[in-house]
Amino acid sequence: MDRLEQQVRFILEIDKLKQVFRRSLITDGSRRENDAEHSWHFAVMIAVFGEYAPESVDLLRVLKIALIHDIVEIDAGDVNIYDQAGRQQAVEHEKKAAQRIFSLLPDDQAGEYRALWEEFETRKTPEAKFARVFDRLQPFLLNYATRGMYWKEHHVTFDQVMKLNRPIVEAGAPALVPFFERLLFDAREKKYFGDASASGSKDPP
Amino acid sequence: MDRLEQQVRFILEIDKLKQVFRRSLITDGSRRENDAEHSWHFAVMIAVFGEYAPESVDLLRVLKIALIHDIVEIDAGDVNIYDQAGRQQAVEHEKKAAQRIFSLLPDDQAGEYRALWEEFETRKTPEAKFARVFDRLQPFLLNYATRGMYWKEHHVTFDQVMKLNRPIVEAGAPALVPFFERLLFDAREKKYFGDASASGSKDPP
Repeated sequence: MDRLEQQVRFILEIDKLKQVFRRSLITDGSRRENDAEHSWHFAVMIAVFGEYAPESVDLLRVLKIALIHDIVEIDAGDVNIYDQAGRQQAVEHEKKAAQRIFSLLPDDQAGEYRALWEEFETRKTPEAKFARVFDRLQPFLLNYATRGMYWKEHHVTFDQVMKLNRPIVEAGAPALVPFFERLLFDAREKKYFGDASASGSKDPP
Repeated sequence: MDRLEQQVRFILEIDKLKQVFRRSLITDGSRRENDAEHSWHFAVMIAVFGEYAPESVDLLRVLKIALIHDIVEIDAGDVNIYDQAGRQQAVEHEKKAAQRIFSLLPDDQAGEYRALWEEFETRKTPEAKFARVFDRLQPFLLNYATRGMYWKEHHVTFDQVMKLNRPIVEAGAPALVPFFERLLFDAREKKYFGDASASGSKDPP
């Protein structure tokens, strides 16, 4: 198989991301969004909010990360970020998926994209940390726009959202912490969050 | 409204692109894809096929174009590329849409994104020409992968696909012309195209 055929095979394989559904609802609340839609929205956020990145950040690399960060979910599925046990189980599955899917590409690109995915997963570079912020803020904004439909249904509390997301915003885009907190406090004021007393009976992912 | 609020308002507005459906079917043939999914897939193609770009092309700008090129369809809808009359009517509508939607951003970014959209529409820069190639090859590959489901249903012929797409591939990524033709001839061999004798009764867009 020649180089172009390998690249086309990869492009056609990743079409399946359009059928991997997430928990977040689109802004009109009519249905859940899928990973392809999320990846697009996340990438536009990188472009629009690029000005809040620490100075050294290579935005082209962040965009590539945004575009491919969820591709492993074609095999491994989406995991609820509020479900830490499920998250651990998924790690091995995702590694195998990265191996299978990125290996459809020619060797040099397979290596490049696997490295970008691992960079995102290990969260060590400024690019990965900046990307993480918008991987979280994108569904956060959808939850906010739907007046907390997901948060309420799944009993996700203000404290959970604060605890899981604030450190990520602070690590990747400290300039955005005050704005994130402003939205979060506003969402609490407007009663968008789930009921803390019911959070023990959280729905499975 | 402060700068961040304007940016968030834009990000939430463009969520509507997830509800603008196109004519192309996703690869399993189960449903049409939407503009957000197309924009994501198109952007991944820019990353993966970037090596076939003419030397001077700025890939970061091409990626930004890919991500926002269809946003005007939130107001103006999708237009069948094989329907030239409908296309002309849509131009004015799209200009107004660009004015409305990009103006949600802070002034400097509104100008930047309107300019990127106009650059794509006027097809003069190497970046716009390279982007055009993948705006066409993305649905072309979906049509190919679904064995011409769309082409057959809408009586789109080999000659139409050749005539409308080959000049665009040649203008933006001449290195890809032989590969495009190879797929096109292969699709004809496999009878993926519509019936020429029925093409007068083409479905409305």
